Amino acid sequence: MKEIVSLMDYRSSIKVVDATLRDGGLVNDFYFTDEFVRALYESNVKAGVDYMEMGYKASKEMFDQSKFGKWKFCDDDEIRAIVGDNDTNLKIAVMADVGRCDYKKDILSRSESPIDLIRVATYLNTIPAAANMIEDAKKKGYEVTCNIMAISNGQESDLRVALDILGQTSADVLYIVDSFGSLYPEQIARITDTYMEFAAKYGKQLGIHAHNNQQLAFANTIEAVGDGVDWLDATYAGMGRGAGNCAMELLLGFLRNPKYNNFYVIQFIEKYMNKLREDGVVWGFDLQ
Amino acid sequence: MKEIVSLMDYRSSIKVVDATLRDGGLVNDFYFTDEFVRALYESNVKAGVDYMEMGYKASKEMFDQSKFGKWKFCDDDEIRAIVGDNDTNLKIAVMADVGRCDYKKDILSRSESPIDLIRVATYLNTIPAAANMIEDAKKKGYEVTCNIMAISNGQESDLRVALDILGQTSADVLYIVDSFGSLYPEQIARITDTYMEFAAKYGKQLGIHAHNNQQLAFANTIEAVGDGVDWLDATYAGMGRGAGNCAMELLLGFLRNPKYNNFYVIQFIEKYMNKLREDGVVWGFDLQ
Repeated sequence: MKEIVSLMDYRSSIKVVDATLRDGGLVNDFYFTDEFVRALYESNVKAGVDYMEMGYKASKEMFDQSKFGKWKFCDDDEIRAIVGDNDTNLKIAVMADVGRCDYKKDILSRSESPIDLIRVATYLNTIPAAANMIEDAKKKGYEVTCNIMAISNGQESDLRVALDILGQTSADVLYIVDSFGSLYPEQIARITDTYMEFAAKYGKQLGIHAHNNQQLAFANTIEAVGDGVDWLDATYAGMGRGAGNCAMELLLGFLRNPKYNNFYVIQFIEKYMNKLREDGVVWGFDLQ
Repeated sequence: MKEIVSLMDYRSSIKVVDATLRDGGLVNDFYFTDEFVRALYESNVKAGVDYMEMGYKASKEMFDQSKFGKWKFCDDDEIRAIVGDNDTNLKIAVMADVGRCDYKKDILSRSESPIDLIRVATYLNTIPAAANMIEDAKKKGYEVTCNIMAISNGQESDLRVALDILGQTSADVLYIVDSFGSLYPEQIARITDTYMEFAAKYGKQLGIHAHNNQQLAFANTIEAVGDGVDWLDATYAGMGRGAGNCAMELLLGFLRNPKYNNFYVIQFIEKYMNKLREDGVVWGFDLQ
């Protein structure tokens, strides 16, 4: 049983990452209005969220720009049009998928970019390519996380090899990703144990990105918090592919760090997320 | 961390209680069609569910029969009209609320009744009255559980006194009830510890009835399973007051006892529960 103090106190090392535009964008092909994105940015700033993921840095060679909203591509200029010089405590993130991102060209030097954090997303069979992307982003000056997707479909022995390779890269954070929302809290505890072994060996932090297919996205996220995971992905109203993600409003209600203010999250949901649903955008557990 | 065998094997002492009519009835004032109730009964039989709660034994002095469907009152004849002699492995339950049930009159002797299990529901401040109802039901020949509601609003010292009193009754099972869905899995683990102390002392089994206000009904139920709780309440599609309950289809997916067959649950949901929603009956987390 976890220490009772962990139920009352907070851990200042915890970071909350708003993935609404990125994982939510998979539901509406990234067609968010500028008003929505600007209001979300302002809400995150006021709510004390640590990172806001704007979308993907997707390859324009591979994806037709006329078929997606701009947050699939996250041009630096588009981000800057929303966040300006981003003179706030909220940091800006984008996701770069292995094999679907022209990272050498499209990810500029951090000194020229409004982006703070590059999140490299990989499957277990593309770890070497992920390592290359991590080093490229690090050399350009970014904070870097690596999200290993679909681990519930992989072998534990493969996961250990992947963590050993990624541990030797300069990534700051290694992410547990339950892509299919198929893991139970007990399994999250065991997987976290494995990740923690390599995190300790190589001095990395850990993150979790959960899906809600079994109504366990929030439960698995707070299980991971109790097990020592510090980087927590969430989305407003749980918006995300299929059954969606860990809900930001539940997560901030759980975390006790007074720097987080859930009021602004709930206000945003009432004004903007419910509107999205009324307009026919569909996500969440009931979809199943 | 729990034993890994518990993630692969099953515990034959676990009982699943379908509370769809009873907790779901709070959403539609117990107006279920006979077709719905009969199909639910047949689904539970085929799915291997252990108990089916038909509704409340509510006082007809206190509640106007013209304002509720018949499952608020659960006349034995109405139950018999659905289940006949109930020559199945599914047992029949009803809930009797302290102070809202003419139990001396309305609960017949078990030998004359299709009911197997009386579930006495009480708050912390009506424990002595609950004890009287438990003994009455036991004397009439029933299996008896006692559900202590709203424990998240009570003091731990009061809960301990309540468990000590109820431990000395002839109740078979003591239930943890998270009436407001406000507890986190870590808190469920601690509360289960307290219950377990009295269960061991007095030779009782434990049960859990969870609500989904924080999308934790299923997570808290499986947390309790891991902590040794054997009686698990669930409802089809999570139907229940407000945010609803632990979803039967998730719970049976988690339990590994081959006697459970989730196919029939999912079939029922597709045919009947989705229809309820289409007809405007509202429940679930999104309501918040």
